Amino acid sequence: MSLADATTAKHDTPLSEPPSAIAARLAARFAETAAARDLAGGTPKAERDQLRASGLLTLSIPIEYGGLGASWAETLSVVRQLARADSSVGHVFAFHHLQLASVRLFGSPAQWEPWLRDTARHGWFWGNALNPLDKRTVATRVPGGRALSGRKSFCSGALDSDMLLASAVEDSADGKLIIAALPTRRAGITLFEDWDNMGQRQTDSGSALFEHVAVAEDEILSHPGPLSSPYACLRPLLAQLIFVNIFLGIAEGALAEARHYTRNEARLWAASPAAHVTEDPYVLAHYGDFWVALESTRKLADHAVTVFDAAWNEGLALTGAGRGEVALAVATAKVAATRGGLDITSRIFEVTGARSTTAALRLDRFWRNLRVHTLHDPLDFKVRELGDWALNNRYPPPSFYS
Amino acid sequence: MSLADATTAKHDTPLSEPPSAIAARLAARFAETAAARDLAGGTPKAERDQLRASGLLTLSIPIEYGGLGASWAETLSVVRQLARADSSVGHVFAFHHLQLASVRLFGSPAQWEPWLRDTARHGWFWGNALNPLDKRTVATRVPGGRALSGRKSFCSGALDSDMLLASAVEDSADGKLIIAALPTRRAGITLFEDWDNMGQRQTDSGSALFEHVAVAEDEILSHPGPLSSPYACLRPLLAQLIFVNIFLGIAEGALAEARHYTRNEARLWAASPAAHVTEDPYVLAHYGDFWVALESTRKLADHAVTVFDAAWNEGLALTGAGRGEVALAVATAKVAATRGGLDITSRIFEVTGARSTTAALRLDRFWRNLRVHTLHDPLDFKVRELGDWALNNRYPPPSFYS
Amino acid sequence: MSLADATTAKHDTPLSEPPSAIAARLAARFAETAAARDLAGGTPKAERDQLRASGLLTLSIPIEYGGLGASWAETLSVVRQLARADSSVGHVFAFHHLQLASVRLFGSPAQWEPWLRDTARHGWFWGNALNPLDKRTVATRVPGGRALSGRKSFCSGALDSDMLLASAVEDSADGKLIIAALPTRRAGITLFEDWDNMGQRQTDSGSALFEHVAVAEDEILSHPGPLSSPYACLRPLLAQLIFVNIFLGIAEGALAEARHYTRNEARLWAASPAAHVTEDPYVLAHYGDFWVALESTRKLADHAVTVFDAAWNEGLALTGAGRGEVALAVATAKVAATRGGLDITSRIFEVTGARSTTAALRLDRFWRNLRVHTLHDPLDFKVRELGDWALNNRYPPPSFYS
Amino acid sequence: MSLADATTAKHDTPLSEPPSAIAARLAARFAETAAARDLAGGTPKAERDQLRASGLLTLSIPIEYGGLGASWAETLSVVRQLARADSSVGHVFAFHHLQLASVRLFGSPAQWEPWLRDTARHGWFWGNALNPLDKRTVATRVPGGRALSGRKSFCSGALDSDMLLASAVEDSADGKLIIAALPTRRAGITLFEDWDNMGQRQTDSGSALFEHVAVAEDEILSHPGPLSSPYACLRPLLAQLIFVNIFLGIAEGALAEARHYTRNEARLWAASPAAHVTEDPYVLAHYGDFWVALESTRKLADHAVTVFDAAWNEGLALTGAGRGEVALAVATAKVAATRGGLDITSRIFEVTGARSTTAALRLDRFWRNLRVHTLHDPLDFKVRELGDWALNNRYPPPSFYS
Repeated sequence: MSLADATTAKHDTPLSEPPSAIAARLAARFAETAAARDLAGGTPKAERDQLRASGLLTLSIPIEYGGLGASWAETLSVVRQLARADSSVGHVFAFHHLQLASVRLFGSPAQWEPWLRDTARHGWFWGNALNPLDKRTVATRVPGGRALSGRKSFCSGALDSDMLLASAVEDSADGKLIIAALPTRRAGITLFEDWDNMGQRQTDSGSALFEHVAVAEDEILSHPGPLSSPYACLRPLLAQLIFVNIFLGIAEGALAEARHYTRNEARLWAASPAAHVTEDPYVLAHYGDFWVALESTRKLADHAVTVFDAAWNEGLALTGAGRGEVALAVATAKVAATRGGLDITSRIFEVTGARSTTAALRLDRFWRNLRVHTLHDPLDFKVRELGDWALNNRYPPPSFYS
Repeated sequence: MSLADATTAKHDTPLSEPPSAIAARLAARFAETAAARDLAGGTPKAERDQLRASGLLTLSIPIEYGGLGASWAETLSVVRQLARADSSVGHVFAFHHLQLASVRLFGSPAQWEPWLRDTARHGWFWGNALNPLDKRTVATRVPGGRALSGRKSFCSGALDSDMLLASAVEDSADGKLIIAALPTRRAGITLFEDWDNMGQRQTDSGSALFEHVAVAEDEILSHPGPLSSPYACLRPLLAQLIFVNIFLGIAEGALAEARHYTRNEARLWAASPAAHVTEDPYVLAHYGDFWVALESTRKLADHAVTVFDAAWNEGLALTGAGRGEVALAVATAKVAATRGGLDITSRIFEVTGARSTTAALRLDRFWRNLRVHTLHDPLDFKVRELGDWALNNRYPPPSFYS
Repeated sequence: MSLADATTAKHDTPLSEPPSAIAARLAARFAETAAARDLAGGTPKAERDQLRASGLLTLSIPIEYGGLGASWAETLSVVRQLARADSSVGHVFAFHHLQLASVRLFGSPAQWEPWLRDTARHGWFWGNALNPLDKRTVATRVPGGRALSGRKSFCSGALDSDMLLASAVEDSADGKLIIAALPTRRAGITLFEDWDNMGQRQTDSGSALFEHVAVAEDEILSHPGPLSSPYACLRPLLAQLIFVNIFLGIAEGALAEARHYTRNEARLWAASPAAHVTEDPYVLAHYGDFWVALESTRKLADHAVTVFDAAWNEGLALTGAGRGEVALAVATAKVAATRGGLDITSRIFEVTGARSTTAALRLDRFWRNLRVHTLHDPLDFKVRELGDWALNNRYPPPSFYS
Repeated sequence: MSLADATTAKHDTPLSEPPSAIAARLAARFAETAAARDLAGGTPKAERDQLRASGLLTLSIPIEYGGLGASWAETLSVVRQLARADSSVGHVFAFHHLQLASVRLFGSPAQWEPWLRDTARHGWFWGNALNPLDKRTVATRVPGGRALSGRKSFCSGALDSDMLLASAVEDSADGKLIIAALPTRRAGITLFEDWDNMGQRQTDSGSALFEHVAVAEDEILSHPGPLSSPYACLRPLLAQLIFVNIFLGIAEGALAEARHYTRNEARLWAASPAAHVTEDPYVLAHYGDFWVALESTRKLADHAVTVFDAAWNEGLALTGAGRGEVALAVATAKVAATRGGLDITSRIFEVTGARSTTAALRLDRFWRNLRVHTLHDPLDFKVRELGDWALNNRYPPPSFYS
């Protein structure tokens, strides 16, 4: 199976600027059109191509495979930067790196080494068609591998991608989960432009149809396989950690935009004891609350990233307890990011006022984006997991969601 | 000045059904297209015409003037019913009645008696161009009255209206507030279709331009005039009470739609101890919280409506303290309706899940509508007023916002 | 079995003042020593005797049996008044009336008519030894009735009482619950002065020991028996409704005392924009929040009392659905009273300041009293019941706790 | 002036164990009697003497002056450990080190070097008589120094202390604040055992009377003097940081005790879907919330400690902006510690139940201790400061409270 069907966009290696500077520049550019693209929905093709050209798609790829060799701390920092400006683009960017991590965690070096190398070389963008809860896609044994058939929902970033990570359920008694990496242009794959949601509108999280899609044996991640070790079980934690950083980025973006509005556009209420809206005691109280929520989340998120990087570096030596500590740190940050973020993105309007609700600003997109994204898996059960730790000293049981 | 330029749509009098039954039927019909019209924005022309045809525009008009003679309790109950289905339509409907109340509170019987009679006879729809905070429209003395010139924002329900209540600032040293009732088709009035906001998208709360608009002396509400007595000061309280009922209607509508989704579409999370999503302990906890918030608000709103009706019936005998009690009841209900409603409209997604964020449902419109509408005047200062009562036994000082 | 062993204190009938005036006078007197008695703990003997002398122990007894014939609205209003000043005394007073209601709901007229008559005549004070969760007291069949033996906890108001309502588990395979009314001085009953808790310190909710206590057949409430009909199932709802009114009274008392302190003792913080602490924007915000919480609870509580009275008056005609509506109203009020009250009693210190923590004021007793009392049964399950209604339209299943 | 009047208790130097191990041992011992001593109030003399004997009073003293040379991170970690077991003892221990820091920040090396050396040598315990808000103590110039006269409140840890840091207002037009260090036994100083509060009952935060107390010129901290530089302005931040660690310790202590109770004593509610109380979904949800609150606070507190240590080590090179960053970090942690802690200490009862309110456990002491201590200065104004940063990029203005 040839990889020649992949795109050939390349980035200039080595980068002339640090990744954070490149990300800052891209974020500033994406911010200019974020509101308009939120309205339009669809694929952020121009932005995806700018990401391709920027070299940041190689960020998490080790240097020996042609990448920038960034830690997860660095990679997720870029995710957060992008999410402040545009959480859809931040999401597809982050999920690209999640797929690259997945092949390293679930597959053999013989599999992922060429994939990483080619990703770096050709500027591939990876998309998601892995959704363990959606069991409609079935994998049937055929000579040389499997054939995948069926539908799949929530395929974030699949459109305009070069490679896909896809899941299917084996056509057998135990219905084992199969995960494979394959070129997006592989015959039989149809990706629908049917993502039209109230938020995260440019994540292309629509549906896909697989019709007798040929998957070679060596495209299937079965050695060591999904969730096969504490180390492999880092994959869902990376997904959750990506959410944390996107949630945080959204809240930070919302606050930045609210702050700009309060300082430049908002009006003092007549009954205020203050001389200017920026001195109003209630306005200041809201900003104080926002700050505490954001700082709490930042500290929890930074901690979670740090322990994740350490666990990642342990590799197969990582124990269940070690993985459990990461799970706790990530879950704690996620709960705080969700709650704080939902409060901030809804409450900013108290400090911007009625006129800030004009559709021209689309200031509601922060709440909409966060509200959608925070529903990936129920918060109540994350809180429950943390309670099980606090009360019973039990680590979250490894799964695709914890 | 002839009123012949007004519309001549009529309703069948007397009604063949009780108003609540008519409202229920209309609400059910409006609900079918509410999501689509939320997307489209613009004037809900068909719905406005159905309101005209329904006879409900005469609801608050006393029987002796050809109306249905409903109490405010009845009128606001219809507002709440409509708001459950479509808070934009509920808003323009309620503001129509607010304008009718305004002319009775601020004007002389010689003024408002024919207006009410003609409203009942011709099926007039009143719109709003009264905005005390926007002082750009100036009234200049001319022979026989005034000429109004300038811009005005937030003119809810002005488009497609037959009559307008408009405010202007006198072209004099003290810049006194002038309020006048005049036909919407009066020469010199331009209403812009420029309301494009994140919520309440069909309230037509856009801007207007007045260019040398002739206003006759007897169109000006100067005897007794705006806020001229505790009784006249009921006007802003009616506006606030309308908000309460719309906020409550929005939250009730959100809960009803969430409930339908949970029962028919939502999925049980794998880690739940329950056998069905409707038995999940966390889902039930959310619904329990929603219930407590809604019931609290209903009881406070009902109480506020009751004391408002009593105060209204006192007429000019109403004392400042009597008006103060109404102000407290309304403000308390408003704070509860705002907080409870914002929580419910954002939190319903915890009980409906990720798939309920599809744009097809537009389930976010409840939060967007409420978020926009609750910014009419800052909640912080409503809470402050209540604190001033609780601590210092001072009633809210009468103004256009309290 | 003679009732001659009961106290013979009498009240002057008919009352020379309305009950609310008597209650106000008593409450004012109790308030003077409430803090000192909170410190001391033990039986509020003097206050109990003042209640006996006041005639208020006959408040809920129908006039035909020598009582004041008050509705539950009136009776619970007195409970709330007393609880504002002293929630322990309010509790034992309320539980006296609960026992009187219990014999009417669970027993036959032939049983409760003389008990009510004698209560009115002799000024009896009833206490509680009914605790369905504590199954240590066993009832053994003996000639002429049963013998009760075993321990029992949480016997509120049993000390210094004249009559007791006691529960026991039958010494049989099905372990049926037996409830009997008997004189407190009956041989074999030992009441321990062992209630020493962090709050509700004068409720005497300590333990009791029954040693071969003779119970006559006609002292057992078996016709119609406990929870035997929707009407009989009002008993736990009355208990819960008493809690609501005590919780509310505690919060109101806390607010009143905080308000007095803020106005007379509290100091303005140097950084405040206000000229006086009573104008500080944050102080006012707290009071505003307190007001909203209290008003919400008052409206819910008043509604619950109203529907309870109506259901009570229906008697055996009360349906399961009718009883269900009462259960919902009571549970809703209880959740609001608990949450609002805990917030207020903890947060008042923000508006009184560091110096108000002196033990001389014992301003913490409101939180301690409420914290203890709100644990009678878990709030989480009350919320769950309301959720089950809101989502599934299921009434709370009748039990001793819902 | 001789220092011979100080106590001569000594500790064994160097320590045979790490400070944290010693602290753990002490904390375990203090925990055994914490509830009883909370009831008793008064001076924790035995515990103070154990602290003297432990050597931990020299913890923050540099090695060159005979101390253990601990960083503030280490010192505050011990404070947190002690506060978990007994927040009164934690408080007086922490304030001892605060006074030592104060003489270093406000005085000259010629002053503080012997004080630190003697503290290490003689096992001195320092107490507080510094209270800038209480201006009743006046300093009059006398030959050789000043004479202090007047009363002072909130003198935490003054009783049983060896040295005092005392503030007074100069008897001059500008009423300058004077701060001096002097032996507690100095003639004219009377310390009253009049601290009887609802919480922090063994902090001896009572009042003092100064009657013509002679203060030598070289006992006055006037070179460089109070708040004389960004570095000197670290003093109030250290005080606030101590609060953070005590608040956090209290909450951690409350959670530990609640957890023990839930696991060993609490009962499953009959309506629970779980088989054991430790699996109840609502119990787990509460613990999950507690965990998130504690982890957030821990991360914020740890961060604040880190930046404080760094600023401390900068010494006089510390800029206003550098000090501002510390102020932000400390204030953020304080807000989180206050809110999270108050919620936890009140809500633990939901997971322990009615029986846990027995006075024998005194489980309410955590809330009472925290409630008292968190009132040191108003939280609202801390939030306001953070809002002023978030909105206006203004650092908290240095004062004795921020």
